[in-house]
Amino acid sequence: MPYAIVIHAFPRTDLPVAHAQGKVLHGLFYELLLKASAAKGDEVHGTAGLKPFSTALLLSERQRRAESIRAGEELKVRFTFLDDALYPLLARYFLTTPDLSFDLVRTELTVARILSTPQSGEEWAGCTSFDDLHASASETEKQFSFHFATPTFFKRGGGPTYPDMIVPLPLPDLVFGSLLRNWNQFAAASFVEATLLKEICAHHLEMTHHRISSQQARLVFQREDGQYRTTTFPGFVGTCAFRLVGLQDTAIIKTLNALADFAFFSGVGAKTTMGFGVAKRI
Amino acid sequence: MPYAIVIHAFPRTDLPVAHAQGKVLHGLFYELLLKASAAKGDEVHGTAGLKPFSTALLLSERQRRAESIRAGEELKVRFTFLDDALYPLLARYFLTTPDLSFDLVRTELTVARILSTPQSGEEWAGCTSFDDLHASASETEKQFSFHFATPTFFKRGGGPTYPDMIVPLPLPDLVFGSLLRNWNQFAAASFVEATLLKEICAHHLEMTHHRISSQQARLVFQREDGQYRTTTFPGFVGTCAFRLVGLQDTAIIKTLNALADFAFFSGVGAKTTMGFGVAKRI
Repeated sequence: MPYAIVIHAFPRTDLPVAHAQGKVLHGLFYELLLKASAAKGDEVHGTAGLKPFSTALLLSERQRRAESIRAGEELKVRFTFLDDALYPLLARYFLTTPDLSFDLVRTELTVARILSTPQSGEEWAGCTSFDDLHASASETEKQFSFHFATPTFFKRGGGPTYPDMIVPLPLPDLVFGSLLRNWNQFAAASFVEATLLKEICAHHLEMTHHRISSQQARLVFQREDGQYRTTTFPGFVGTCAFRLVGLQDTAIIKTLNALADFAFFSGVGAKTTMGFGVAKRI
Repeated sequence: MPYAIVIHAFPRTDLPVAHAQGKVLHGLFYELLLKASAAKGDEVHGTAGLKPFSTALLLSERQRRAESIRAGEELKVRFTFLDDALYPLLARYFLTTPDLSFDLVRTELTVARILSTPQSGEEWAGCTSFDDLHASASETEKQFSFHFATPTFFKRGGGPTYPDMIVPLPLPDLVFGSLLRNWNQFAAASFVEATLLKEICAHHLEMTHHRISSQQARLVFQREDGQYRTTTFPGFVGTCAFRLVGLQDTAIIKTLNALADFAFFSGVGAKTTMGFGVAKRI
């Protein structure tokens, strides 16, 4: 059952924002999960391949450009969960821990509230089930618009033939291919014929609009000596819209709609466990 | 021998800028060409497929947003020529016609000057030969950066299997594929193995940077009753950079460099004969 929660927290001292992303955030997630359940934390950490969660900082424009988030200023941390078992464990930990706080880049943050429904007024919080996502997906809607809120990029190629490449553009087959992989990994009922579906996206989804801009994506990780290192690569943020052309199959239309709605929980593209690819259908 | 010329002209009355693009500009080009040589004009007009020229208005940011270009305000019209025979005919016409002027959307424009070299200070003017483009192309440079100055888009697909689709993003295989088609059509010596080259671009050119924005592309054409009609679709303007990864072949590197340099003359993508896809390597 996919969940998206947003934690509103307040750093006690100034928090260097550039350092609070990437692996650091990823590390915070595991730290909280291990506190909630050592067994589950070890299990998730030890599993190769797609992870059943995403992390991100939802920075305001000012915070994104600032060097640090000031002491006492609200910071939004978002976690999403794609695995049924994960969120209940964390929720129990949150509920049973008085004066919840956590550390990020050696800065203590006090948790003011944890929002898990859109009714809370937090647009990036919510929950649903894979069954509901599928049941409520339209069989007629052929327009798919997305908002990408944090830098998004894809990795393509690789293998023996081609080098691994970063693709910093919202190509329809990569957007839906990413959603499809996550869906098939974590939903009880997979969408079959993944290759066919990706092919359809490449050849039948036309981009009718985009308002994207590049945003250098920073990946910060902590070395063994405790120092932070940064690598950067191009990502995109903004909005784009696709429309399905030349296809009438209602089963395919329904699948694409379910996947588009699923973006809210799964994110899109590479490194969603490290703050990238926060997206939703608009 | 590819040429790019820029005409600086001044409308005598206000010129409605939205109407001065697309087919209208394309029509102006043929009108001038027919005046220069009726035989050549008919020949070019009658040939199917890729045309050996491009047209564009090089609008300032203010002009692009304005409803009209004011009487007496400088307007830049750019023509490029990919066919050896074309420009000499027009150049002779320009040189032998006193008080050159032309009509655009029922507005008379006085030609102040025609610039054909970058030494004139006009960055969008120049000439070269296919041989020189190839001879001077680097065998080592693996970075390819472009500036797209007017809305650019590609058409892909079509045929019996897939619908025709507009792709409003600078995908490396579409950028270089477009350059390659024009090169092979108009250069004396073709680059062989076009399919292989497109494949290489799709899998070995990584986008390392982009700063693109969408700009609604307006295509204006005149109906038989004399009325103007407008259709719009998404295009992009801005800059992007690719780098070649995982390939060392100097012949391929040289070809890609020649094609990238050729963009200045051929433009990139669809409808370059109607003002779209003005581009250059940066």
